[in-house]
Amino acid sequence: MRIQKGSATLHAEISALENAGRLPASVYQGATMYTSLSPCDMCTGACVMYKVKRVVIGENRTFVGGEEYLKSKGIEVVVLQDEECQLLMQKFIKEKPGDWNEDIGEDE
Amino acid sequence: MRIQKGSATLHAEISALENAGRLPASVYQGATMYTSLSPCDMCTGACVMYKVKRVVIGENRTFVGGEEYLKSKGIEVVVLQDEECQLLMQKFIKEKPGDWNEDIGEDE
Repeated sequence: MRIQKGSATLHAEISALENAGRLPASVYQGATMYTSLSPCDMCTGACVMYKVKRVVIGENRTFVGGEEYLKSKGIEVVVLQDEECQLLMQKFIKEKPGDWNEDIGEDE
Repeated sequence: MRIQKGSATLHAEISALENAGRLPASVYQGATMYTSLSPCDMCTGACVMYKVKRVVIGENRTFVGGEEYLKSKGIEVVVLQDEECQLLMQKFIKEKPGDWNEDIGEDE
């Protein structure tokens, strides 16, 4: 969404919450967030703020986000280490390193 | 923005980042985030992800967010304890308790 919409905040998890709309707090608290990659600090914080029950992560070999912080807040974290998710990210990073590094600026 | 736009994620800090647009990572890293109230976990995470330099908080008597987490990540936190900010929040919470509690559901 950084590229598609010029958005500085619509990471996948934020976008999923936004698309789900304005729901009662209890809905988030019974929800599972599914994400192909380990969530960044912003998306981790969104899960903590909404007190989601569980976060299922496709893989965390490419990047490790706030998993320990999620666990410390009592959120169940499941890491699948799914090969398809890994290949997807590796392909994207290889083809578009600038896009991958844009918001956190690790290559600057 | 929950009410104005039906948005589940456009808290003030997220909205500020979104309004600032898609900027180079270095811009955030020299930036100060100003907020009338202590930032929630999502907004804290956004500041951490973007590595903002400093967060200036109007007051934290009404609510204490992720200030310690910000500090642990090397972000400077300044709390002004401004009376105008406190009165603004107290008035809002008194008039609209349901809106204040909606996303975190503390009164449910």
